[in-house]
Amino acid sequence: MDNGARVVDISADYRLDDVDVYEEYYKEHESPELEAVYGLPEIYREEIKGADLVANPGCYPTAAILSSAPLLEEGIIDMEHIVIDSKSGTSGAGAKPSQKLHHPTCAENLRAYNVTSHRHSPEINQEVEKISGKEATTYFTPHLIPITRGMLNTSHVFLKEPKNEEELLDLYEDYYVDEHFVRVLDDLPQSNSVRGSNFCDISVRSSEESKRAAVISTIDNLVKGASGQAVQNMNIMFGFDESEGLGDMGLRP
Amino acid sequence: MDNGARVVDISADYRLDDVDVYEEYYKEHESPELEAVYGLPEIYREEIKGADLVANPGCYPTAAILSSAPLLEEGIIDMEHIVIDSKSGTSGAGAKPSQKLHHPTCAENLRAYNVTSHRHSPEINQEVEKISGKEATTYFTPHLIPITRGMLNTSHVFLKEPKNEEELLDLYEDYYVDEHFVRVLDDLPQSNSVRGSNFCDISVRSSEESKRAAVISTIDNLVKGASGQAVQNMNIMFGFDESEGLGDMGLRP
Amino acid sequence: MDNGARVVDISADYRLDDVDVYEEYYKEHESPELEAVYGLPEIYREEIKGADLVANPGCYPTAAILSSAPLLEEGIIDMEHIVIDSKSGTSGAGAKPSQKLHHPTCAENLRAYNVTSHRHSPEINQEVEKISGKEATTYFTPHLIPITRGMLNTSHVFLKEPKNEEELLDLYEDYYVDEHFVRVLDDLPQSNSVRGSNFCDISVRSSEESKRAAVISTIDNLVKGASGQAVQNMNIMFGFDESEGLGDMGLRP
Amino acid sequence: MDNGARVVDISADYRLDDVDVYEEYYKEHESPELEAVYGLPEIYREEIKGADLVANPGCYPTAAILSSAPLLEEGIIDMEHIVIDSKSGTSGAGAKPSQKLHHPTCAENLRAYNVTSHRHSPEINQEVEKISGKEATTYFTPHLIPITRGMLNTSHVFLKEPKNEEELLDLYEDYYVDEHFVRVLDDLPQSNSVRGSNFCDISVRSSEESKRAAVISTIDNLVKGASGQAVQNMNIMFGFDESEGLGDMGLRP
Repeated sequence: MDNGARVVDISADYRLDDVDVYEEYYKEHESPELEAVYGLPEIYREEIKGADLVANPGCYPTAAILSSAPLLEEGIIDMEHIVIDSKSGTSGAGAKPSQKLHHPTCAENLRAYNVTSHRHSPEINQEVEKISGKEATTYFTPHLIPITRGMLNTSHVFLKEPKNEEELLDLYEDYYVDEHFVRVLDDLPQSNSVRGSNFCDISVRSSEESKRAAVISTIDNLVKGASGQAVQNMNIMFGFDESEGLGDMGLRP
Repeated sequence: MDNGARVVDISADYRLDDVDVYEEYYKEHESPELEAVYGLPEIYREEIKGADLVANPGCYPTAAILSSAPLLEEGIIDMEHIVIDSKSGTSGAGAKPSQKLHHPTCAENLRAYNVTSHRHSPEINQEVEKISGKEATTYFTPHLIPITRGMLNTSHVFLKEPKNEEELLDLYEDYYVDEHFVRVLDDLPQSNSVRGSNFCDISVRSSEESKRAAVISTIDNLVKGASGQAVQNMNIMFGFDESEGLGDMGLRP
Repeated sequence: MDNGARVVDISADYRLDDVDVYEEYYKEHESPELEAVYGLPEIYREEIKGADLVANPGCYPTAAILSSAPLLEEGIIDMEHIVIDSKSGTSGAGAKPSQKLHHPTCAENLRAYNVTSHRHSPEINQEVEKISGKEATTYFTPHLIPITRGMLNTSHVFLKEPKNEEELLDLYEDYYVDEHFVRVLDDLPQSNSVRGSNFCDISVRSSEESKRAAVISTIDNLVKGASGQAVQNMNIMFGFDESEGLGDMGLRP
Repeated sequence: MDNGARVVDISADYRLDDVDVYEEYYKEHESPELEAVYGLPEIYREEIKGADLVANPGCYPTAAILSSAPLLEEGIIDMEHIVIDSKSGTSGAGAKPSQKLHHPTCAENLRAYNVTSHRHSPEINQEVEKISGKEATTYFTPHLIPITRGMLNTSHVFLKEPKNEEELLDLYEDYYVDEHFVRVLDDLPQSNSVRGSNFCDISVRSSEESKRAAVISTIDNLVKGASGQAVQNMNIMFGFDESEGLGDMGLRP
C-alpha cells in the first residue's frame, strides 16, 4: 500500500472496527492502525469507490446483513430479538481436510456449530448497529449442511407494528431496486438458483396475526460470499462496470 | 375401536385438540367426537398407558417439543419469542415422487418452505401451551435439506434470567434422567448419531452475557419422528418393555 | 426444413442409420426418409458443416465414442471384447419425477440398469463400427450414481499387441491435438473438472504385463452430453467460432 | 496365537498366498511363516471351522468373488477376459481425512483410481484361480462414488457357450441355495438394500444374441466387506449360529 496499491483484503483482519473484539475472536492484530471500508457494495458503495483498503465481508455476514438491511434502515423491528439461523455448505469451512469435513462423516449429517460463539457474530452485530444506528443484540447460529457450495440464511425478526408480506416485499424491492446482484423474489429463494453466481436472492414472509417476519436469503458462499464479492469491490474501486468478470448466471442444478 | 381395538394413529387427525384448527390446516374432520392422547411418551406416558386412541406426533413437533419441554415446565423463558428453526431430510416430505424431491432438483439445494404457515405449527404451539400452562406464541420455520433421513431442530429462546450452559445442561439432564430414548449430551448433537434409531439427542448452549439460549435436538424423522415412536407408544399401552423392538443403536454413518 | 431451416435434433430420432434398429429400441419412425449427420464434431466436423439435419448424440455415446475413437482408427484393439461401463448422474435420466429418481430412493444408492439392453447400445456400436471400419461387438452397461450432473465412462479394451501408457497417451494426444473440447490428461479425469463445461476429459491406463487398457472419459451430461454439443454443432454449421457461447470453464466444485 | 488365541485378521497381511506378491503391493512381511485360511465363508466354510488364523477378505474381493464363483466353478467362462468394474462409497477409503475424501472435493465427483494397479487385484486373481482351478487374468478397476457406505460390483464376463438369463439365474440360485447372507435376485441389486447388513445381493444379465454376461453384486463395504464378515468368520470358527450378532436387516434408505 505504501507504493500505491489498493487492496481488497479477503481475510477477516480489517472487518471489525474494534481491535479488541478482533483479538478476542481471532489473534493479535498486526496492523491495527490501518483503516478499511467494509466491502459490502450494496451498503457502502460510495465509501468503497475511494477506499485504498477494502475488507471483504465474511460469507455469513454477507447473507445475514443483506437480508436485514431494509428492515434496519426503516427502523421497524425489535432490536433485541434478531435471530439469525444460517445453513452453510461444506466449502465454507475451508479447503483443508479434517474429520469434520471427511465425506463419510459429514455427507449424511446435520449439525450446528459455534452455536452462540461464531466469530462472524461480532461482524454481523457491528453492521446491524451501523446500518440501524441503534444498539442491537443479534443471535447468530451457523449449521453445517452436506452440499458443497451454497448458504441459506433465515433471519427471524419481530416487527414493532404488524406488516403483511406484500408491504414487506415492497420495502425490499424498493431498497434493492438499483442493485444488480440482489434479487428480491416473491417465491422463496433456493441455494441452487445462485450457485456459481454473485447473486443474493431474498424473500420475506410474515404472519398476518403476529408481528413476526422471517427473511430468507441465499448466496454462493464462494462467490458473493467470498471472491466474487472481492471482484465486485475491485470493479467499484477502479470504476469498472460492477458486474465485469462476474457474468450474470451461475450453473443451474 | 368398537370391537375393543386400541389404536396408535400415525396420521395427523387426532393431534390437535381444537377441531377448528385441524380443519383450517387439513380438511373436514370425519370423527371429531373421538378423544385421543397425544403420543409423546416422555410427556404423556401415564395417559398413554390407559388410552384407546393415541395420536402419534409429527416429526417436527417431536423434535421441537422435546427440545423445549424442560424450559417450559421450569417456566424460565419468555413465551413470546420462541423461534423454532428446523431442518429436515427429504424422506420427511413423503414417499411420493415430486419435482420438489426430484434428485436433480434437490440434491444440492437448500430451501425453506411454509415459512410461517406449516401445519405442524399449531401442533407445536398447542403442546408448548399445555406443557407450560401459559399462552405462547411459537415461530416455526422448516427447511428441506438434501439428506435422506434425519432432522435437526434449533430452538432459539430467551431466558427471563441469565443462566449459563452448565445450569441449563443440569436442568435437561434432571428432566430426562429416566428417559431411555432421550440422550442429553454435552457435545452438540449430530443427526447421523441417531440415524436408524429411536433416540432423540439434545444439547443446549447459552451466551453468558445475554439471556439467550439455543437448544439443538435431533431425531431420525422415520423412527422417533414416526413409526418408531408408534412402536414405543404401543409398548407403553400394552405394558411391554418400552424399547421392545426398537433396539438401542441405529446405523452409524 | 422445407423452408430452409437447418436443424440440430436433440432427440434420438436420427442417430441410428438403421430404421429397424431404431424401431426396435424406440417406436415407429415418423420420417425415416430424412438423412442426418451424426453430430459428434470431433469425428464428423466436415460433414456437419454442410448438413441440414444433425443428429445430436446421446450422452453415453458421446463419452464412450470419444474415449475409444483413437484406438478404433488405429486398429489396434480386439473388436470382440470392448466393455463400456458407464456411470451417470441423475439428471441424465430426465426432468420428470419418478420413484427411481426420488431423492430418498436414490441419494445414497448405487445401481446398474438396462445392463445389456440400453437403447444407447446400438448407437455406440454403430459408431464403433463406422470409425473402425470393422464389425464390432461392444458391451455397454450404464449405472445410476447420486450426483446431479456428470458422467464417467470406463472403456475396458484389449490390445492386439501390448502398449505402455506413454504410447497410448501419445496416441490420444496426437488424435485430439487440434480439438478444443477434448482434453487428454496424464492424471485420471474427474467429473467435477468438466461440470458446467463442454469439455470431455480423457486419460488412459494399461497394464505393462498384459494387453489390457482402460480409457476413462468424463463429460457433463447436460453440456457436452446434450445442449452444449448442440450449440457446438450449430456453430460449425453456421461457420461461427466453435466455442462461441460455450465459454471455456465450468463451475469448479 | 502361541497362547491358543484364534484370530480373524482384518488386515491384508495373510490374504495373499504368495509373499512376494504381498511385498510388491504392500510392504515387507513380518511373519510370512504363518498360514491362514481365506475368510470368505461361502467358499471356505469348512476350512474356516478349524482355522486358527483367518484372513478376512477385502471389500472389493468379497463382492467380486461372490459375483463370479458360480461361473468359475462351473467352468463356463473365458478366463482371459474377466473385467471387474467396481464402484465404492467413500468409507471404503478409510477413516483418515484427506484431500481426496474432503467433502467439497468428492461430494459431487466421479473418478476411477488405481485403474490397473489396485492392491486388491492380486487378491481377486488368486481367488479366481483357486476357485476355477485354472490360470486366469482378471481386470479390476475401482471407482470412488459419493455415498458414504455401499459398493456395487459389475463383473463383465464372456461365456464359452451362450446362456440365457434364466439359466444363469438358476445356476446362481442353486449355488447359493444354502447361504444365508447371499441373496440371488431376479431384479438388479441396489446398494441401499444391503446398507447396514451383512448381505450380498447378486443378479445376472446376459444378451441372448451374444456370449456376454454381466453379474451385478452389492455389499455394505463396512459389514460384509469388513467387520460383519469378521463376525461371520468368528461365528463359524466357534460353532455359533452363523448370523449371531449380525441381525437380518440393515437400514433401508
